[in-house]
Amino acid sequence: MINKLVQEIKKKNAPIVIGLDPMLSYLPKHLLDEAFREYGEGLKGVAEAIFTYNKGIIDATYDLVPAVKPQIAMYEQFGIEGLMAFKRTVDYAHEKGLVVIGDIKRGDIGSTSTAYASAHLGKIMIGDKAYAGFDEDFATVNPYLGSDGVEPFIKVCKEEKKGIFVLVKTSNPSSGEFQDRPIADADNRPLYEIVGKQVAAWGETCMGDPYSYVGAVVGATYPEMGRILRDLMPKSYILVPGYGAQGGKGSDLKPFFNADGLGAIVNSSRGIIAAYKQEKYASYGEEGYADAARAAVTDMRDDIAASVGLS
Amino acid sequence: MINKLVQEIKKKNAPIVIGLDPMLSYLPKHLLDEAFREYGEGLKGVAEAIFTYNKGIIDATYDLVPAVKPQIAMYEQFGIEGLMAFKRTVDYAHEKGLVVIGDIKRGDIGSTSTAYASAHLGKIMIGDKAYAGFDEDFATVNPYLGSDGVEPFIKVCKEEKKGIFVLVKTSNPSSGEFQDRPIADADNRPLYEIVGKQVAAWGETCMGDPYSYVGAVVGATYPEMGRILRDLMPKSYILVPGYGAQGGKGSDLKPFFNADGLGAIVNSSRGIIAAYKQEKYASYGEEGYADAARAAVTDMRDDIAASVGLS
Repeated sequence: MINKLVQEIKKKNAPIVIGLDPMLSYLPKHLLDEAFREYGEGLKGVAEAIFTYNKGIIDATYDLVPAVKPQIAMYEQFGIEGLMAFKRTVDYAHEKGLVVIGDIKRGDIGSTSTAYASAHLGKIMIGDKAYAGFDEDFATVNPYLGSDGVEPFIKVCKEEKKGIFVLVKTSNPSSGEFQDRPIADADNRPLYEIVGKQVAAWGETCMGDPYSYVGAVVGATYPEMGRILRDLMPKSYILVPGYGAQGGKGSDLKPFFNADGLGAIVNSSRGIIAAYKQEKYASYGEEGYADAARAAVTDMRDDIAASVGLS
Repeated sequence: MINKLVQEIKKKNAPIVIGLDPMLSYLPKHLLDEAFREYGEGLKGVAEAIFTYNKGIIDATYDLVPAVKPQIAMYEQFGIEGLMAFKRTVDYAHEKGLVVIGDIKRGDIGSTSTAYASAHLGKIMIGDKAYAGFDEDFATVNPYLGSDGVEPFIKVCKEEKKGIFVLVKTSNPSSGEFQDRPIADADNRPLYEIVGKQVAAWGETCMGDPYSYVGAVVGATYPEMGRILRDLMPKSYILVPGYGAQGGKGSDLKPFFNADGLGAIVNSSRGIIAAYKQEKYASYGEEGYADAARAAVTDMRDDIAASVGLS
């Protein structure tokens, strides 16, 4: 799947993933009204509106981007109905040929990580039939529990030719509280570097061509750390959140890329899916939210190309 | 909710939580056969069997224990159907008066943690009505992202009078890979102590009587570290996994308790819910799995009382 991701990034000349993180406040009124009329003003109505909203964005952008990244928390907050909208979104994105990165940030002790890996990347056997729970192509994974919490994901990645992005240095303001602490038995290098080195080691065991099945999450908001991590994990794709609404700029992105113009894929959520709320795209109006998203993707692609020096 | 948990622990004289972590291989054949006959041999059939299995265990033990801890991964692996069984389990445990600890190990950047907190501990407003997604009483939380990833959970805990257990030192063999690393700017103390101190600080902001809404997860497999963490977080309840099947013994548990005989609640999953598979409880047979679970709870209570010196 990393090979497909790289191919699609090259083909579309867009190292961009759209974060499908629907907040209730992003949903245009006409979609909510319609869904509430048919399914009632409740969890089922919202879930239906979320799926319709996502479908509109996917339809308007799938020819421009290689991948989407639904953030499962935004669906989980609407309970079972919300998670059904998550699953429908994954399936619909697949129908449109998109790579799907499940932003799930799971991670647990071995047997439990095995269950999460089965849920999101693998299959579960019942009798002699295999069933896929959510069936994303990539998942984000939290490394706090160490190797035996991550390796079950890697095992499933090998079986299914799928991939993971391990949290190394996250985009949020207080990510440094634990991630930046200097590790005394590693020349006082920060924890995120220790994790980054481990990501590179895990990645060596499951190489695509030429990138690994095991990537990393490093926030756009920390470009200097991105530069160091890029060097420590040369074969790991970096999923870069934090561009746009969180404060990361195009000019911050260059360190995340390798000299081949590859090696990073930049996420934008709000900046694309709720573009219609920005003054810049206000002329599209609420009903034109999908076209506004398309315009925002085009602008983001140009911003990254100019900043990173992609051809 | 921490007050209720402490009361129930005292009343039942059992600092025990049953981990409702149903593996497919634990489910007795008669339950699977019956569910497959009615719902087909697939995800729905398994989910039905899981709920029936959990219900049997809850019915057989709810008078003995204060709490259950369903591990959501074990449900998530069966997709939407599995998560419906999770939700039914939470609701049924509540009907029986049990405290429910959702073992979800979530944690993300602020806005996303807010969504997870709403999903599992809080409510979401749609129009002027509030809806609860999963509605556990406590949730486990991963601290890797730092304070702004944890505080949204604490905010919801304050609103809803619920609680969290933050991963500090996990029970798995490789938990030390990152958690034990010496932090140079903190007198070379290990990372888990830094996290533990932060748990105590977070906990100060939302005190029950006399324990905090913010607890910690510390594995039974690391009793010496448990002793240090007990002192660092005197007001935090410690959720202790790793007893039984993972290797933690009754004699390892004393350091996790305070002098008042409180302060810790010990989880056992396999050792209780699949007790019927152990030689010791084999006479109950597969059909007597719930009675075997009850016997295992009684034995665990006696083992802990003897080891910890509870009256």
